[in-house]
Amino acid sequence: MSGSLTIAGLGPGAAGLVTPEVSVALDEATDVVGYIPYVARVPDRPGLVKHASDNRVELDRSRLALDLAARGRRVVVVSSGDPGVFAMASAVFEAIEAGPAPWRELDIRVLPGITAMLAAAARAGAPLGHDFCAINLSDNLKPWALIEKRLRLAAEADFAMAFYNPRSRARPEGFARALTLLQEVCADSRPVIFARAVSTPEEDLRVVPLPKSTADMADMRTMVIVGSSRTRVIARSGPPIVYTPRSAP
Amino acid sequence: MSGSLTIAGLGPGAAGLVTPEVSVALDEATDVVGYIPYVARVPDRPGLVKHASDNRVELDRSRLALDLAARGRRVVVVSSGDPGVFAMASAVFEAIEAGPAPWRELDIRVLPGITAMLAAAARAGAPLGHDFCAINLSDNLKPWALIEKRLRLAAEADFAMAFYNPRSRARPEGFARALTLLQEVCADSRPVIFARAVSTPEEDLRVVPLPKSTADMADMRTMVIVGSSRTRVIARSGPPIVYTPRSAP
Repeated sequence: MSGSLTIAGLGPGAAGLVTPEVSVALDEATDVVGYIPYVARVPDRPGLVKHASDNRVELDRSRLALDLAARGRRVVVVSSGDPGVFAMASAVFEAIEAGPAPWRELDIRVLPGITAMLAAAARAGAPLGHDFCAINLSDNLKPWALIEKRLRLAAEADFAMAFYNPRSRARPEGFARALTLLQEVCADSRPVIFARAVSTPEEDLRVVPLPKSTADMADMRTMVIVGSSRTRVIARSGPPIVYTPRSAP
Repeated sequence: MSGSLTIAGLGPGAAGLVTPEVSVALDEATDVVGYIPYVARVPDRPGLVKHASDNRVELDRSRLALDLAARGRRVVVVSSGDPGVFAMASAVFEAIEAGPAPWRELDIRVLPGITAMLAAAARAGAPLGHDFCAINLSDNLKPWALIEKRLRLAAEADFAMAFYNPRSRARPEGFARALTLLQEVCADSRPVIFARAVSTPEEDLRVVPLPKSTADMADMRTMVIVGSSRTRVIARSGPPIVYTPRSAP
């Protein structure tokens, strides 16, 4: 049997959000490779070898997975959410491009998943129902000036904005700067959704007007969605519904 | 039994991309409401009433679903892809906001799905692996000038761009104008992915440099993804891999 490499998205956490296609790939794998908490989500079974690694070693992890596949193993690299959105797929392809030529000829597939942005949006209503953008607020791999430039242009374009990695221990101040920038540029009371750990037992959802949003409302497990100027909040007895209408003037 | 309204995403087409959560909702529904081809994807069974309607009647369809739920039915509104991304969720919330007060108090859930952008990106590699935006190119509900403004700002921000509804019979010229604009503004050979009917038997994928992209490469079933300035193409024996690196200078 020749080896293969599948890069699979496990969704945001709940088993009900793992696609059947991904479940089949995991059932057929000989090796699962990924960040510790994601590998832990894959049930143990005889014949399955798990390779769990710490955060921030994406390229090492990718090379391990590629090497295993090249040696004939059926390898699944697991990501949270969708592997193609601020997750493992790009890291694997970076490793392939810089690696030995035979890696390019491996049997490689990417299996999409429910990315955090879609799960968070669904819980809140439909804040991404019109044009939107997705920005990784981590400045590990890009300069902060580029993040600020994108925030300004996204506000000018009147996109709704989904922010991945708003806050981490290593960068506590970046998200506060992003919020201050948006408060100045947008100058309105559009809703901001702080969606923490959606679809897990720790799920928590808050909707806060932009001027009252503060950085401590997000942590490493929070997805932040900022509405466009046209995003609406429907009040009701339960949590409000936040949605962006389909039309724009 | 009190009524409920679930707005569910069926994914791009393949059964393997329908989440278990959505399958359960469909199994428990008394009524399924949606556009004809999406309702047709739900298997018939005794006790399930299907309400299929034509395109472009989203608000009428939403009101029908809300009325059924208010009368005690367990209603599932089906969308292709994710219901919150250029699909039915915003239409339902527009109907709720404009409708009778009791509609706000209904038991309403949105169940996310694999939106076309993620399925197309996965097939090509990881073109959305860095910051990106999603734009509906239809000018049914917004002026063309706003679309052009967003394209220019998205190019300036150096987002990868995912285009929904690039082309329809009613608007044959819009996509050609969008491509011409991007060819002028971007002035490079970044890859464009034309992903048609991903995960269905009619699936077709093409990767074309921006200067050689033409409007006839897309139709109503095509998702178009334009890379950022940093998007890479890895040549190999099979179809090329298109991905956007995680870092930016």
